[in-house]
Amino acid sequence: MSLAIKDDEVDIVIGALRSDLTTFMNEWRPMFSRFHLIIVKDPDLKEELKIPEGFNLDVYGKPDIDQVVGSSTSILFSGYSCRYFGYLVSRKKYIISVDDDCLPARDPKGFLVDAVAQHIRNLTNPATPFFFNTLYDPYAEGADFVRGYPFSLRGGVKCALSCGLWLNLADHDAPTQALKARQRNSRYVDAVMTVPAGSLIPISGINIAFEREAVGPALVPALKLAGEGKCRWETMEDIWSGLCVKVVCDHLGLGVKTGLPYIWRTDRGDPIASLKKEWEGVKLMEEVIPFFQSVRLPREATTVEECIVEVANAVKERLGSMDPVFARASKAMLDWIKLWQSVGSSSSRSSAV
Amino acid sequence: MSLAIKDDEVDIVIGALRSDLTTFMNEWRPMFSRFHLIIVKDPDLKEELKIPEGFNLDVYGKPDIDQVVGSSTSILFSGYSCRYFGYLVSRKKYIISVDDDCLPARDPKGFLVDAVAQHIRNLTNPATPFFFNTLYDPYAEGADFVRGYPFSLRGGVKCALSCGLWLNLADHDAPTQALKARQRNSRYVDAVMTVPAGSLIPISGINIAFEREAVGPALVPALKLAGEGKCRWETMEDIWSGLCVKVVCDHLGLGVKTGLPYIWRTDRGDPIASLKKEWEGVKLMEEVIPFFQSVRLPREATTVEECIVEVANAVKERLGSMDPVFARASKAMLDWIKLWQSVGSSSSRSSAV
Repeated sequence: MSLAIKDDEVDIVIGALRSDLTTFMNEWRPMFSRFHLIIVKDPDLKEELKIPEGFNLDVYGKPDIDQVVGSSTSILFSGYSCRYFGYLVSRKKYIISVDDDCLPARDPKGFLVDAVAQHIRNLTNPATPFFFNTLYDPYAEGADFVRGYPFSLRGGVKCALSCGLWLNLADHDAPTQALKARQRNSRYVDAVMTVPAGSLIPISGINIAFEREAVGPALVPALKLAGEGKCRWETMEDIWSGLCVKVVCDHLGLGVKTGLPYIWRTDRGDPIASLKKEWEGVKLMEEVIPFFQSVRLPREATTVEECIVEVANAVKERLGSMDPVFARASKAMLDWIKLWQSVGSSSSRSSAV
Repeated sequence: MSLAIKDDEVDIVIGALRSDLTTFMNEWRPMFSRFHLIIVKDPDLKEELKIPEGFNLDVYGKPDIDQVVGSSTSILFSGYSCRYFGYLVSRKKYIISVDDDCLPARDPKGFLVDAVAQHIRNLTNPATPFFFNTLYDPYAEGADFVRGYPFSLRGGVKCALSCGLWLNLADHDAPTQALKARQRNSRYVDAVMTVPAGSLIPISGINIAFEREAVGPALVPALKLAGEGKCRWETMEDIWSGLCVKVVCDHLGLGVKTGLPYIWRTDRGDPIASLKKEWEGVKLMEEVIPFFQSVRLPREATTVEECIVEVANAVKERLGSMDPVFARASKAMLDWIKLWQSVGSSSSRSSAV
């Protein structure tokens, strides 16, 4: 792997929603074993974690979370949100985050996909959000810019976030999943794309990587549904945080990519039973999207932290009266930024000792 | 093919830049023979066209062009621009346009790609320019919208333009082609994407289809380079017209797709020799892109014709003094709209006789 980054610049963060990680870890061993892992145990999970030997890792659980977060009740690290605690305590440049119901996928030729290597490739090559390249990732091997692509834009910009995709179980919402219970995704699209500036995207947290130092604080656990469950389609926290990241990246001139790498997603949960819970999230999206499509950040907001504070204030002002979930999200975002700054700075101090 | 359109709603337009179309036509016979073909002979081409038997077609040449266009000298139908004459005289709802140096491609399983059927599928399924779907074309078989995609946007909008891609010779500009003379595109990306609203794209005229009744007048032969040649990388007419179409589609709420179908593009021309000519186009793009990124059409412009007139006026005002090529492009666009209206209306009259 001739990548310009060192293994110790990467943390792989895994939110553990189930106790037995044996299969998960063993299947990922070839890709994970060179890197440091942060495993965050869902605070609602009572059983001990089962983790196989041979990894370089730190495990965080409810006591660690309580110690760092203290008395704050606005940020909840339960369920899928436990991963955000890993983002908070990481000190690495890059974070890769994979859900524990995912296994390595195979490409159409039958080769195992190294999702870690592909995410790193996506993050270390530039992104091109300001003009669309029909030939997909122009920096991929054997690829380039298409005729008519302005030369002044061919340098691209920093890629801050890489969103991978899913084979087997695609990431549908509960209604779609219930309607098409037997549908499986077998289409392997061999492409990486930059999502154009100004275009919103539903970012799923199942299989993502990002430059923590560039956009870490924008990956924020803020939107907690009242009836949120332990199935992916019962959550919206990643969709919300994805909208925040994209708006911030557009404002700061950073890139977001989607496409490769694929992971293999195994089945979990009952979509019919989830329908009632998910419906709340589906309805909320109809309010959320026009907000994020129209929110404009002031020129003075030049850091990710400042941008998220601006978004949080706008959420409170424009969505706060619609549904209590939005006022809570706004407060969680503000508290998150404070937490990020205090944990980050205290950690810098301690590492300097 | 269970498509909701009839064969006689489609014209396939072929600009003939070389006289012997035997191989081209025979290779495309399985896909083309059910449809009506319009072949427009490059007025600079002296030899007789060689066209095999068994097609339903009309051939247009210099005398036909002179008769319709009359004394106007602003619109030139020479070289690749001859295809636009076919767009002008077509009376069909849909147009598919394929360059005469292209042959049917094969997919990774070895099956011939029916580019016509795929273009029609792209045009007759909705487009989704207002929100990005990470699962690619949500209307493709086995596909859907991803979790978090707003339900209110899942109906999509009309797709006005479908841009296909190229195997073997990708559509690079002359500098890239010269630099990577041996590079061939073998990556078959099994995807169709809507280009998001507000994002510009270099549309290549090599392999496209559009709803003539929806956006026909926006496919306009306007930007003629001073040293334009007979190689694709020596032209910019399609890039310019593509920028016009995209701006108009964004304004009118229509969709543009890119991706499948692939065609197989054979080599033609000497990129080193073309470098000097193409360089002019490459330089012009640096002026052109900021213009198209910032041009805003007035709300009163509600038809494609009105939109193109607005763009033409803005071109004259903002780019006219930079380079004479822009003043000529502006005039060509205005003349084209007049021509489109007169040919369209006179044709309606004659067909009513």
